[in-house]
Order: sequence, then C-alpha cells, then structure tokens
Amino acid sequence: MLRGQMMDTPLMISGILAHAAQAHGKQEIVTRTVEGPIHRYTYRDCYARTQQLAHALVALGVKPGDRLATFAWNTYRHVELYYGISGIGAICHTINPRLFHDQLEYIVNHAEDRFIFLDLNLVELLEGLADQFPKVEGYIIMTDREHMPETTLKNALCYEDLLEGQPESYDWPLFDENTAAAMCYTSGTTGNPKGALYSHRSTVLHAMGLLAAGTLTMDSTTSVLPVVPMFHVQAWGQAYAAPICGAKIVMPGFRLDPPSLLELFNDEGVNLTLGVPTIWLGLLNHLNETGAKLPAGFVLVSGGAAAPLSMIKAYEEDHGVTYVQGWGMTETSPVCAAGGEGPGFTELDEDTRYARKMKQRRLFGVELRILDDDHNDVPHDGKSSGELVCRGPWIASGYFNDDEASKAAITEDGWFRTGDVATIDEDSLLQITDRTKDLIKSGGEWISSIDLESVAMGHPDVQEAAAIAMPHPKWTERPMLVIVSRDGSSLTADDVLAHLDGQVAKWWLPDDIAFVDELPHTATGKVSKLQLREQFKDHKLPTI
Amino acid sequence: MLRGQMMDTPLMISGILAHAAQAHGKQEIVTRTVEGPIHRYTYRDCYARTQQLAHALVALGVKPGDRLATFAWNTYRHVELYYGISGIGAICHTINPRLFHDQLEYIVNHAEDRFIFLDLNLVELLEGLADQFPKVEGYIIMTDREHMPETTLKNALCYEDLLEGQPESYDWPLFDENTAAAMCYTSGTTGNPKGALYSHRSTVLHAMGLLAAGTLTMDSTTSVLPVVPMFHVQAWGQAYAAPICGAKIVMPGFRLDPPSLLELFNDEGVNLTLGVPTIWLGLLNHLNETGAKLPAGFVLVSGGAAAPLSMIKAYEEDHGVTYVQGWGMTETSPVCAAGGEGPGFTELDEDTRYARKMKQRRLFGVELRILDDDHNDVPHDGKSSGELVCRGPWIASGYFNDDEASKAAITEDGWFRTGDVATIDEDSLLQITDRTKDLIKSGGEWISSIDLESVAMGHPDVQEAAAIAMPHPKWTERPMLVIVSRDGSSLTADDVLAHLDGQVAKWWLPDDIAFVDELPHTATGKVSKLQLREQFKDHKLPTI
Repeated sequence: MLRGQMMDTPLMISGILAHAAQAHGKQEIVTRTVEGPIHRYTYRDCYARTQQLAHALVALGVKPGDRLATFAWNTYRHVELYYGISGIGAICHTINPRLFHDQLEYIVNHAEDRFIFLDLNLVELLEGLADQFPKVEGYIIMTDREHMPETTLKNALCYEDLLEGQPESYDWPLFDENTAAAMCYTSGTTGNPKGALYSHRSTVLHAMGLLAAGTLTMDSTTSVLPVVPMFHVQAWGQAYAAPICGAKIVMPGFRLDPPSLLELFNDEGVNLTLGVPTIWLGLLNHLNETGAKLPAGFVLVSGGAAAPLSMIKAYEEDHGVTYVQGWGMTETSPVCAAGGEGPGFTELDEDTRYARKMKQRRLFGVELRILDDDHNDVPHDGKSSGELVCRGPWIASGYFNDDEASKAAITEDGWFRTGDVATIDEDSLLQITDRTKDLIKSGGEWISSIDLESVAMGHPDVQEAAAIAMPHPKWTERPMLVIVSRDGSSLTADDVLAHLDGQVAKWWLPDDIAFVDELPHTATGKVSKLQLREQFKDHKLPTI
Repeated sequence: MLRGQMMDTPLMISGILAHAAQAHGKQEIVTRTVEGPIHRYTYRDCYARTQQLAHALVALGVKPGDRLATFAWNTYRHVELYYGISGIGAICHTINPRLFHDQLEYIVNHAEDRFIFLDLNLVELLEGLADQFPKVEGYIIMTDREHMPETTLKNALCYEDLLEGQPESYDWPLFDENTAAAMCYTSGTTGNPKGALYSHRSTVLHAMGLLAAGTLTMDSTTSVLPVVPMFHVQAWGQAYAAPICGAKIVMPGFRLDPPSLLELFNDEGVNLTLGVPTIWLGLLNHLNETGAKLPAGFVLVSGGAAAPLSMIKAYEEDHGVTYVQGWGMTETSPVCAAGGEGPGFTELDEDTRYARKMKQRRLFGVELRILDDDHNDVPHDGKSSGELVCRGPWIASGYFNDDEASKAAITEDGWFRTGDVATIDEDSLLQITDRTKDLIKSGGEWISSIDLESVAMGHPDVQEAAAIAMPHPKWTERPMLVIVSRDGSSLTADDVLAHLDGQVAKWWLPDDIAFVDELPHTATGKVSKLQLREQFKDHKLPTI
C-alpha cells in the first residue's frame, strides 16, 4: 500500500473548543444555573476558563488516564469539565445522580474515580454516599465561594476558587486520538453497570457524523437546548456538535419541568431541542392544558425510547413542530440513526409520512444489520425483524475493565450487539420494535411490545402504557398491557381493546389489561419492564 | 495514557458510497453525458456499477498502490472511478486536460500512471500525447461500444465493455485509513507540477468537515451541481460530501457555458452550485443580457480566486442568490474555510454584510495562522497581513516523490505554507489579499493586487482586471493595472482612475493603466500574473 501524504494531525476534543473560540468566539452558551440566575458567556469565555481548569487539574495532581467523575446537570461548568478533563488526557466520567445507591457505589469504585465534581444541590446525596467511596480523594463543588455550603465531604473544594488566578492559556497536548476521553456507565437492568469508554477519535467523529448527516441542519443560526442530560451519553453529542458548527447552546440546569423549559425556549430563541419521550409527553400535556406556544421553526428530537405516534402527530399538527426520531445507546456514543424524512418526503401521503417519522436513517460512519438467531441477515423489507447489530468508529468494542461483558457484547465477526430488535425497510430506514428481553413470543411468532404500547398511547385517555409477556401454557407467552390512565378519566379495559381493534393484528390483542397509578421507571426515564414483570409475576391471565 | 474502548473501524472512501446506496439508495446522480443525452441513475445503481468496476480493475491486473489516471469531465462514470479505484487500494489520479502538453507529459510519467481513463472527446488529445507516455499500459475510453471510436491508442478498451458481466457485489477491503486514495498535481506557475496525495482519512474527514461546518447546509433535499471539475481538487469534495448527506448530484459533463448550466439548474432543481469566479462572471453577464432567471433558494459557492464585490452584489441583489466564498487549494483537499455569515449577520449594515461575504470562516479540523517574515504571528485585526499557513488532517504534509518541494512547503514546526497573503479579523474571518509572489511593495508598504482588481472590476465597463508590480527606482515597485474592457465600451484610463479614487488609498492608485483584448489565464482559469509580468517586462511606467 502507498501511504497518503496528508498531515498526521490527531482528532482532539480540545480542538473543538479551540475552534469554536476562534471561528465562533462571540456565540453564546446560556445556562440556567443551579444557584438560580441565568448565566451567559461566549465560546471565547468558555475556552479561557477551560484552560484555567486544565491548569487547576494539573495543580491538583491529575494525570493522563485518571478518571474524574461528575455528578452534574447541564451547565456551562459541566461543559468546561468535558473539555478541560479530556484536554489534559484524563477521563471525564459522567454519572447519573438518579441511579440507585448501590449502582453509584459500584460505578465510582469500579471506575476508580480520583475526584468528584458535583453540583450544589447534589451535596447532600454525595455526603450520604461518600463513606462508600474510599478511593475518592476529594470533592469539587461546582459553585462560587458565596454559595459554598458547609459540608462533611472530605477535601471539599470550591470550583470557582480552583479556577481563580490560573492562566487563561493552556498548551493542549496532542496525543493518540484513540486515547480515552470520557466514560459513561449503562444502567443495565440486569447485572452490574458497564462502562462505555469513549475516545477522542470516537467523540469527534460522532459529532462530525451527526452534523454531516444533515438530519438536524445545525449551523451558527441554531440555538440548541439539550434536555437530555450531560450525564446521559454526553447529551447525545450536543456539547461537541454545537461548537463545531457555531450553534448557541442553552443549558437548562436541573429544571426540566415544562414551564422552565418553555421560558428558555422563548427567551433564547431555541429552535432545536433533544430529549426522551417522557419529557416530550409532559411538555405536550402542558402545552395542551395552558395553550402555551413553542417558537416558530422548532425542531424536536426524541430518542432513548420509542415515542407514540399520537404524540408525534400532536406536535407536528397542533404545534407546528418538526419531529425527528433518533436511535442510539450508551455504547454507541449514542447517535447511529436519526430522521426518517428524505427526498420526496413532502409528496408522500400522510400515513406514509408519519410511518417514516417513526423510523430513522443511519448516519454515515455507522453500519447497521439485523440478524436472526442463527446470525443470518434478515431481509430489509420493513417487516422481518432481527437483533440489531452495528459497527463503526463511535461504537463500543467492549466495556471498561469488564472482560466478560465485553465478550458478550461483540459478535464473533466484530459487531456490537445492541439487544434491540428492529426492522429495516427497503429505504434502509430503521425501526426498533422491541428489546430482545422484552419481546413477546406467542405461538412461535413475535409480538412487538413497542407497537402495542404506541397504539395504546394513541387513546386520548392513556397517559402511559407498557406491554409485557406473561407465561401461557398453550401459546408460551401472551401480551398483557399495563396502563396509567389520564387523571379524571374513566377508562376501561374494554375501551382500550376497542381502540386497539383494527390497529393491531387480532392475535396481538392483549389477554389482560391492568390499570396502575404509576409505572416503574429506570434512572434514565425508561419504563422498567424488568420491575414490571417482577410486579406482575404472580398475576394470572384470565385466558388461562 | 488509557486507550478508549471504541471500534477500530477505519475511515474508508468505499464506505461513503456503500452508505449512500443503503441510506439514500433512491437518490439520483444526473449527468449531461459527453455523448450528449442526459443520463440518470441512483446511488444504488452507481454503487452496483462501482463494484463491477472494482472487479474489472482487479481483472486488469491493478494492484493496491497503483496510480490510474483520469482525463475526464464531471460525469457519473468519473464518480464510479473515484470510488472503484480507491476502493481496491489504488490511486485515482485526476488530470486537468487543459494543462500544457509538457506539464501533462511530466505529470503522467512522474506519477507512473499504469492506465489512463479518458472521455470520448479527449481521445484526440491523448493520441497526440501517447508517445510521451511509455509506461502507460492501456487506455480506457469512458463510453459504450456504440460510441467507441477508431483510435491509435494502444490497448484501447471500452469502459462499458470492461464492466459488462462483472458481478455487482465486491467485498471492499478494510485497510489503514492513511493509505493513499487520490492524487492531483498543482499547475504551479513555476517549476514542475507537484502531486498532492490524498488519503482515505483525509478525503473522508474533509467531506465530513465540509458538511459539519453548516456553511453549505447540504442535506438530502439538496440538488448540487459542481461546475468545478472533478479533475480540479476532487470537485471540492462534492462527490464525497453529497453521498454522505444524500444530496442529489447533477454533473454537467464538459458543457460549462451559461445556457447549458442554466438548463440543468432549472431542469434538475439545483439549489447549490460551486465553481470559480470566471464561470460566475460569465453566467452573470448571460443572466443580465438575456433576463434569464436562476431557481429560487439558490446558493452559489465561489472559490479558487477572489471574486469582485460587484459580482457578489449583483448575484445577491439582482438574482436573489446566496453567495458563499470559499478558500482552499490543491494541497488542502481543498476546503479550509467558507462563508463569512454567522450569528447576527442579517442585522449588520449592508457594507459590513458585503465585507463579510468576501471573507471566509475556518472549518473545524483546520487551523489557520498568518505569519510575518520572521515567522511570528501577525495580529488578528483584519488589517495586518501575513503569509497564511495551515494545519489539519486534510492538509498536505508534502508532495508525491518530490523531497525538495515537500521540504519547502512545510514550516519547521509542521505547518503548510500556502503562499497566500491574508488578513484574519477579530471574528477570525479570513481574507486573502494576495499571493506572496504577486504582492506589490511600494515604499516599504504592501499594496494588495487583489483589492485593486476587485475595486477596478466594480466599474461597469471593466470586464476583467489584473494588477501587477512594476519596478520603480524610487518606490522599489509601483502598481500597474491591465484591463479588459467590456465590448463596445469607450473606457479610458482616466475613467478607471476616477473610479478608483476614494475607494483605495491615494498611494495605491496605479502608475499606469493598460488595455488589452485578453488576459493570460492558467489551465485552472486564473489570471497568470507570471505571464502578464513577462508580457509587460519591457513596459516603462510614465512615472519614471
């Protein structure tokens, strides 16, 4: 082979912010701070402070390869940590503060985090946990001296004190782009949490790939508000993508309630936002109840779980929103596919348009396949489903210090097993139909729990719905629906069955429907089918 | 350092077309063929034929690392060659058929091209040159059997015959992404041509970087017509960028006259086009003369040379076009910077808006500096100028088999010397003011030939203008303007001086103005200042 004669410049995360400070220096990062007030500064300011942070970290004794944890919301200080920590060759390990305490204990100790950066309103949580973190050397509270609390946390430092007086210029090292830069543990439903370890290369390529796909059409006129937390798969890459194209970033802090979000949407000219369906269902209810409006030209990206068609239609038709469905997971950086539109979309009939809206197109850089149980490719006909596997430079090749989980995650020929079940249609659009663990197998055929839930949630009185498999002597498994009905409604099982009838195959109709006040959720806001199955394990289907 | 745990998947050019065939399989590539008729097919078709081509190349005996030359216009077959050749690990060496014959001889022999692919209307040119290419083993004429001409070219093959019967599926190898993929020689004004050798990595990152910048806002609803030839720095990356985002490609073949372009613009819904100012000046004249219209929402990208402000204004104000200025060169893949707009652009006053339109914003991935003669950084104040140097993964680190030129091109600390003189303003916007070789040094101060030309071309009767340095006993050098006036005008030197007065500093006013019928141009359509200085070497300034 002949080698090209192009520069060997590595893809460095520090280069992203350096670029933004130069090319989009006056663009803003606006934050609803944990302390309360709105904070605004520019990419140039952010870059200067990130360089101060790098000096401070080195002064603290942080070495390349060290893991530093964050327990933090979406704020400008968290952005500084993303860049400052990875910039010196250490690893920014973001942690979801809503995980169960035993998970937090496992994660911090397994990662061997040396320091923990935490937001002001998480001090109490960490004080309760600190005894379980013997290896953590100190805690940096992300606030200024004025707000610094009394705390039992050992070696507690004030973030602003740490930065004060440090030089605003740091000579970022260039090193192998495959070096680890960030880490995020999956909140697995079974077994211990597993750490996805992102590299500089994977992080930069993921952000570039997201922008290059053209699906989100981000540029320097975009104002993006990531509702998806920075502790949840790096806010889906937004803290990297926005500085590359010069978009304004609006960080919501920890207030994700509809009125707080709406205020930022309107005050900061937000035209792009990203989050999970739970957030968007809540916002939609609020809009419908109050008659509040979203800004014009609003693009709403939903991912992390399937969104019901009824919600998508309501946003598009009643609120003039462009809805984009994304797919990804912690191990895939996360975005692998987004947006089902494409050429000729506007000329399609309404049903086809919405069917496409629920699908996703793969990003350049990621390869997707669907496989049957024997590892053969399943036809791309939009009907046949199989386990989704993927490959690409921002897909995990394993987990941090976990050989067993690493081995189980990768196929023999090197593809990542997502654990999702999906179809791919003739236009190569992806649609997730289930988790392998949540599939319902009735009489040898699969029933998609996601489809059942989506149709059920189209009923105006259904607030939330989850379908689970129940054992059945004749059919092996039969579906059962668990429903949270809307406040004040008098919804019955017969109403739901009548609604489903004709929208799903007869043999998909659930054998039983239960009503509950609340569904169990995981720390990332998804319905916990594991807990739900546990909850209903002694329930007996009326059809047995 | 700790290594990330992400897949080691290399960035491969073959992966771009594989992606397009999957994710945007029904999107079109439309070509005005060299044979005459319009040809249209999909990315899926293109991918199938590219795989046939790969089989055919292997059958021809092509090995990884081999150079295969193309003498070809912008057509679908040229796209197939881009992907088929690089896909098997060989190098697609695009050659500008308009170069001088001695340059062509040097280039083909220096590159050691094994085969030459050529378009039907270049057979005669190659027949005249073939004797000078002793190492070329065969010639493949890019047409079907029906159009296959009689030819004296040795081992002449028909492209369509070559593909016929080959399997439509090829198992693309994965290899080191730094492997060479494509080559393009610069048509330097002095010395031998020099070959820039692009790698898979540089090509993929350049295309992603172009899209990620958000400057061109390309997506699957874009219909892009690259007027810039595929032999001229890979058509500025369009044959790679469009398949990544699923844009439609419209290839103009060899007919680049305004009526032919306009026909394609309108018939194929083109909303993005790219080319050099010479093309856009010609199109503008045609629009003004005929009253013809461009499609709505039209974005016109101009690069390769500075465009006069008057032209930019005419396109924006009279023809509703969005004008984007790009900067790059053969050694930079080429695009390093494009588009001076950005946040708040629309609120600027008209003069500031147009001043910005003439500047360019760096793309993420490329670093730019301007240096004085002692290699110190010049202030970014929009006034101080210096030699532009750049660094990044799609910037050349040297030239193919040319140690001397390689050494001269790179600074001691590893930056590429562009030979351009530029300013960078407070917003980091780049503006090229001259070539180092074309600068005019008068009384110890620099005069920008590009600025003088741009202002002169704002006179409605000036068709083209070039400023050159003339030796002067007192001032060392003084500027002289050489002008082609518009047909039928009675423009005088005094008219031009009166027009310049007040728009440039008094001491910038040229000491002499000459009128000529035509300016000398290089093969890439730029004014050849070298030839012009030669032409006027015995001319005596009236001020001496």
